[in-house]
Amino acid sequence: MSGFFLTFEGIDGSGKSTQARLLAGHLQATGHEVILTREPGGSPGAEEIRRLLVEGDPGRWSAETEILLFTAARRDHLERTIEPALEAGKTVICDRFADSTRIYQGVARGDLRGIVDTLHRQMIQKEPDLTIVIDMDPDSALERGLARGSGEDRFEEFGATFQHSLRRGFLDLAKDFPNRCIVVDGNNGAQDVSLQINQVLANRLP
Amino acid sequence: MSGFFLTFEGIDGSGKSTQARLLAGHLQATGHEVILTREPGGSPGAEEIRRLLVEGDPGRWSAETEILLFTAARRDHLERTIEPALEAGKTVICDRFADSTRIYQGVARGDLRGIVDTLHRQMIQKEPDLTIVIDMDPDSALERGLARGSGEDRFEEFGATFQHSLRRGFLDLAKDFPNRCIVVDGNNGAQDVSLQINQVLANRLP
Repeated sequence: MSGFFLTFEGIDGSGKSTQARLLAGHLQATGHEVILTREPGGSPGAEEIRRLLVEGDPGRWSAETEILLFTAARRDHLERTIEPALEAGKTVICDRFADSTRIYQGVARGDLRGIVDTLHRQMIQKEPDLTIVIDMDPDSALERGLARGSGEDRFEEFGATFQHSLRRGFLDLAKDFPNRCIVVDGNNGAQDVSLQINQVLANRLP
Repeated sequence: MSGFFLTFEGIDGSGKSTQARLLAGHLQATGHEVILTREPGGSPGAEEIRRLLVEGDPGRWSAETEILLFTAARRDHLERTIEPALEAGKTVICDRFADSTRIYQGVARGDLRGIVDTLHRQMIQKEPDLTIVIDMDPDSALERGLARGSGEDRFEEFGATFQHSLRRGFLDLAKDFPNRCIVVDGNNGAQDVSLQINQVLANRLP
């Protein structure tokens, strides 16, 4: 018996974490065994690596070193959390996965997309069964993200132009992987968006 | 003006660190500008990654995640310490470099040598101008290493058979890269070994 691997993707402040949590609650209420996790992080080792990425001066890592650290964290997360849960037949809901590295690094440093893809092919391979891309107006999302002020989403500091490029990146990604990606409008209230997602999933979950 | 990149390799307890230090002193005394460094570590970021590798339960990382962390640390070390020093015309002496990953991972998990090589080609590329392989009887080296009890050389715990395979690995490596590798007999006292190394270098340093 193999579980179902579902990821949420989208720009900072698009409501991924909220929707991941709401969906986990909804699925649990309807009898699914659910693991709710996130990247970077999601396993004890990967959370240690996450701290290197999100705490301290982020400028101390080059883009290349950062990609290696993201990949190390993802590998650990996959081995220790995602794969065992899927093998036990559970539904894994993950807030960000490899698509985020593809889009953030690809947009911030287009010349590194080749490295991202090679490392993924070599060390990760795994793709989600379903990816929900929450699409949202970047200006509103940016306000939301800055208001939250977690200090962890440093890309928010890059400003509106960068956020618009990211949005475009995620929409293009959804076209590149039409079988596993579904775009959901995230501009409405959290409950509305959640309802949309539950409807979409009614047809897709095993 | 480009500097000179020299690495020390060999099994645990073979005297690499001592010889690296003695050589640095000798070269400084003869007018070279020397940077003495080590792996994993050697730059502030790489030292942070090193702590993940050498502190805590090493069994929490799979071999694959470990290789990614070693490569991330090496990339940072290369960018922040080694390349700037070489560009400034300095002599860089490094206690372990990519050869250690090739041999340790290759011997411990032969099936991963391909991954080590791919990551090196993709993210590191750099090879030393000269590598001094200190060859030593593994049983004596093991005693030395255990006596030191730094708690960082966890491979020592794998015992004598593993150390013998590592020794074989380093000797084979020296044959694979004859232009840059020199094998030095490390079974004598530190001063004797140091003298041998200084003589070897007299012909090789620019």
